[in-house]
Amino acid sequence: MSVEESLISVGNRPLHDYVTSVIILFNQGIKKVVLKGKGNNISKAIAVYNAVKDRLGDSIKLEHVDIGSEFVNNRKRVSYIKISLVR
Amino acid sequence: MSVEESLISVGNRPLHDYVTSVIILFNQGIKKVVLKGKGNNISKAIAVYNAVKDRLGDSIKLEHVDIGSEFVNNRKRVSYIKISLVR
Repeated sequence: MSVEESLISVGNRPLHDYVTSVIILFNQGIKKVVLKGKGNNISKAIAVYNAVKDRLGDSIKLEHVDIGSEFVNNRKRVSYIKISLVR
Repeated sequence: MSVEESLISVGNRPLHDYVTSVIILFNQGIKKVVLKGKGNNISKAIAVYNAVKDRLGDSIKLEHVDIGSEFVNNRKRVSYIKISLVR
């Protein structure tokens, strides 16, 4: 059995860390990577996608983008984005 | 001939202004509204979508979300999101 899908939460680490993580996962043979960003990290998640796309080009495809909102600590509502990339 | 689609660029105006604009457009019979946000306004565009969805519920549908990057003034590269809503 192998891991087919991996979720990366985009947070406060430098952009380049996330880009490298995605590229390593695809190079390890994973089929799908989901980038998730919440609140202020939404635009960062998209920046990660843009940088990965620059590096890997047509070998990856933007499968789907989902947006919505969820509650944090049952209180505050934040927007999120989920970007599904497939190889 | 009637307008079938309308693009709203989410910028520095208050969130509520954009929400109201989308609701008015749908009430006028428009079939599709595209919300576009760039850079720091990406999360705001999603917040507009969430608020519109709260107000209009199942009468509107999230048709498609597109992400990418574009050049501003032929120089700086910024990420964008385009959220297509259909009635």
